[in-house]
Amino acid sequence: MSRATRAFKVLISHPNVPVPALELLRSRGAETIICQSVPPSRDEILQKVPGVDAIYWAHYQPLNAGILDAAGSQLRCVSTMSSGIDFVDIPEFQKRGIPLGHTPGVVKNAVADLAIGLMIAAGRHFHAGRTEIERSQWKIEQINWMMGQEIRDSVIGFFGFGGISQAIAKRLQCWDVSKIIYHTRTRKENDGDFKAEHVSFEQLLQESDFLVVAAPLTNETREKFNGKAFDLMKRSSVFVNVARGGLVNQTDLHDALTTGTISAAGLDVTTPEPLPADSPLLKVPNCVILPHMGTQTMKTTIEMSLLAANNILNAIEGKPMIRPAY
Amino acid sequence: MSRATRAFKVLISHPNVPVPALELLRSRGAETIICQSVPPSRDEILQKVPGVDAIYWAHYQPLNAGILDAAGSQLRCVSTMSSGIDFVDIPEFQKRGIPLGHTPGVVKNAVADLAIGLMIAAGRHFHAGRTEIERSQWKIEQINWMMGQEIRDSVIGFFGFGGISQAIAKRLQCWDVSKIIYHTRTRKENDGDFKAEHVSFEQLLQESDFLVVAAPLTNETREKFNGKAFDLMKRSSVFVNVARGGLVNQTDLHDALTTGTISAAGLDVTTPEPLPADSPLLKVPNCVILPHMGTQTMKTTIEMSLLAANNILNAIEGKPMIRPAY
Repeated sequence: MSRATRAFKVLISHPNVPVPALELLRSRGAETIICQSVPPSRDEILQKVPGVDAIYWAHYQPLNAGILDAAGSQLRCVSTMSSGIDFVDIPEFQKRGIPLGHTPGVVKNAVADLAIGLMIAAGRHFHAGRTEIERSQWKIEQINWMMGQEIRDSVIGFFGFGGISQAIAKRLQCWDVSKIIYHTRTRKENDGDFKAEHVSFEQLLQESDFLVVAAPLTNETREKFNGKAFDLMKRSSVFVNVARGGLVNQTDLHDALTTGTISAAGLDVTTPEPLPADSPLLKVPNCVILPHMGTQTMKTTIEMSLLAANNILNAIEGKPMIRPAY
Repeated sequence: MSRATRAFKVLISHPNVPVPALELLRSRGAETIICQSVPPSRDEILQKVPGVDAIYWAHYQPLNAGILDAAGSQLRCVSTMSSGIDFVDIPEFQKRGIPLGHTPGVVKNAVADLAIGLMIAAGRHFHAGRTEIERSQWKIEQINWMMGQEIRDSVIGFFGFGGISQAIAKRLQCWDVSKIIYHTRTRKENDGDFKAEHVSFEQLLQESDFLVVAAPLTNETREKFNGKAFDLMKRSSVFVNVARGGLVNQTDLHDALTTGTISAAGLDVTTPEPLPADSPLLKVPNCVILPHMGTQTMKTTIEMSLLAANNILNAIEGKPMIRPAY
């Protein structure tokens, strides 16, 4: 019998973690302590976390010293069930030497589909079109009404060229695009697989017909897309963000959309989240907005949940996590 | 100097026909008589059409004996600027032996993009998601909220397998779909190019995860998608129509969506058009609706306009039309 069959306690921060992940943990000896509050309550977590061996963090609230202190010194590992980990105090984990896992990679398929959906929905005026139906302003007889952008013959630009961007680029291989360009600090060695070209940030802004943001939120990337950046973009360009709202100066984006500096935007992420119902951005016809649901498919959610469980199981069994966060 | 440089008169039924098409016609000897009303006025057309050699029909109102009679017996040809020609009385053209052209083929790229946008927007709950933001009901903390369908590993089904379906199938070659199936009366010889399999109508309904309608509206296809058809579809399936609203029994579709018989729908076409702002379909969260803008890109609109012009020029010059409608 492997050492993993010895019982260990895992705090599960959310009651809706998919059953396959809970079953996997239990099959390998875990006692699962499941928080029941939705939205998760920090109080409930602080009450249930003392004494656990591992934390399965299935939501996006701050994961910091307060939680680690409450857990106690026997805590052996933590994994989020998320790709982005901007809500985690990573230096605190590093200082304490507690292994931290997350679930990038597996999110790419669901997010890539959604990103292409946003490119088309924004570039082809899905929101404006529907709004005009609802206002009885369907101008069926105007040949030049609601003219949109095709992906064919367009320059597709990526800010960030990790798994999500690559999954999008892979899907667009049969779309007769003009070219695929991307900006990252250093060239990606596998960019040839996607016929993608590494360019400067300025070139990315100047050349992209569709610009997709899929990069982590860091101090370096925060509000990277601001008025100065939008000013460099084509007036016909379509801006898509599936990363984090914080990469964008939202006021500047609003201005760029309403003044015609860029043509349209498709956002799965905003600042803040939830976006207030009276946000001026919701009044902009050429802006498609979604409530951060890039990974919201059953297939991908189960894959994420299993990866988080396996991160924890590996650490408990003394092996490296599959996707360590630092 | 070619015979086409002799002057001939072309009635243009709409003032917004793209300039490149008008310039092409004029460069080959056409005098263009342009109707100015938007929406086009049958009275204006009937007043301007007598004596013309050709009619460039750039809108979707009935094109029938009344127009042909008003034009007069010198009329030599007509082309629509549309792929579908359900608004044309074709037997009347056949009876009189007047060449009729249309513009299929070139529409495929713009419509294919939009169709994939609808597959994703419907399958990933774009409309429901936005509605929840606007209602301040963004349930950011529910792991299983707004769970959608991925295209990966899905069965993609087409009703009709002409240019539009094939352009969609081509684009999905790099998406790791499970398989592509289609129903047409007879197998398409080139279906191997798209790894697509010919199936019965029943199989199409039963097996498709995403079912895309892209076939002409005929007496045979009218309301082909009715309650009986929806009952055979998977409860998780996503239904997309980019053809004509008349292929669908819209009341039955509404029932299928609201009872959970199918999961979601994405419609670029409805009955009637414009769809009234109080249509019950607009109240359905899992239905994405657009105001028939599948071909609304500048690139495709210019391509359509040039094809219609070339149909007319060919006929005037005694050659077969590029895309004859019968």
